[in-house]
Amino acid sequence: MKRFAVVGHLAATSGTFSLNDLPGSGGRMDVLCRCINSALFLSHDLRRDVECYLILLGEPGPEKTVLFCGDEVRYLSPDERSSAALIKKALSIPCGDEFRESTPGVYVRRGGLSRLLGEIPFAVLDETGEDIRTATVLPEAYILSDHHNLTAAEEGLIEGYSRYSVGPRSLHADHTITVLLNEMDRRES
Amino acid sequence: MKRFAVVGHLAATSGTFSLNDLPGSGGRMDVLCRCINSALFLSHDLRRDVECYLILLGEPGPEKTVLFCGDEVRYLSPDERSSAALIKKALSIPCGDEFRESTPGVYVRRGGLSRLLGEIPFAVLDETGEDIRTATVLPEAYILSDHHNLTAAEEGLIEGYSRYSVGPRSLHADHTITVLLNEMDRRES
Repeated sequence: MKRFAVVGHLAATSGTFSLNDLPGSGGRMDVLCRCINSALFLSHDLRRDVECYLILLGEPGPEKTVLFCGDEVRYLSPDERSSAALIKKALSIPCGDEFRESTPGVYVRRGGLSRLLGEIPFAVLDETGEDIRTATVLPEAYILSDHHNLTAAEEGLIEGYSRYSVGPRSLHADHTITVLLNEMDRRES
Repeated sequence: MKRFAVVGHLAATSGTFSLNDLPGSGGRMDVLCRCINSALFLSHDLRRDVECYLILLGEPGPEKTVLFCGDEVRYLSPDERSSAALIKKALSIPCGDEFRESTPGVYVRRGGLSRLLGEIPFAVLDETGEDIRTATVLPEAYILSDHHNLTAAEEGLIEGYSRYSVGPRSLHADHTITVLLNEMDRRES
């Protein structure tokens, strides 16, 4: 299973944000929606071997994690508003310590980055890492940040983690996922 | 200058579509909006050496072409709704035979694929083409299709054109642009 976890530093933790203003009222929820798209969609198909974790750290708190499972998800279309509607639904149900399904293939629980890091062996995608094209082996799970860099506290949590880069330019998180999955597709074919 | 032209077979040609329903009322305008994002955005920067042509063939007609210029565009944010709002504005002004600017860096004119093919030497991005990683030289301009394949009539227009593929899986148009630009970035760096 391939896994991506995207840290949304301002992303709403309540389902009251407006689908008509994902950047503002959603706390740049648009960034996370595009990551869902990049991680899960093929042309006329879904990547059933991918899970995407959205780590939501914005208002009103406390932090929550929303999980999209490629092999289970339903009612998901490629447009930002579609994934945002499923996130909004996930944030509207009572949220406990364990993942609870809000719609098929979408789950939500309390907790953020530190908890997830204790459960899955992640690598980090950033500009300073080893080039994915020349890496001998590629890990299966990756942490990315949204439009903000990881904070010093977050960097402390991932100190010593393997880091990988997708190329010479600094890209948006969703574009980074697309380029990495292309490299993985090539290695598997 | 790098150029992408995306054929939107159902894409609205009037500015009356709803920003709250880009897939439906916009005729899958969301696909074209994501292509604008992929073609023009770097992390905290724009690709100023890219132009993106949207060929809109949907209702009510006649067909129109909307052009986004990376070195001139303003008021563009990465979210789908932002590029859709600029497209909506472009489709709302009187449209003639020559490109007319609707907002900074966004232009609109009458006409579609056949006219554009007569002006710019395009290659085609599709699954049957030569792998972009092994191609000796990469062209600067590419035609892509939206969620539908090119029609037989459109294929007739591009018969004999060079074709390039981005990898072993069939990807969405915007993901294809992202992977190709990553290859171009690597060759330039």
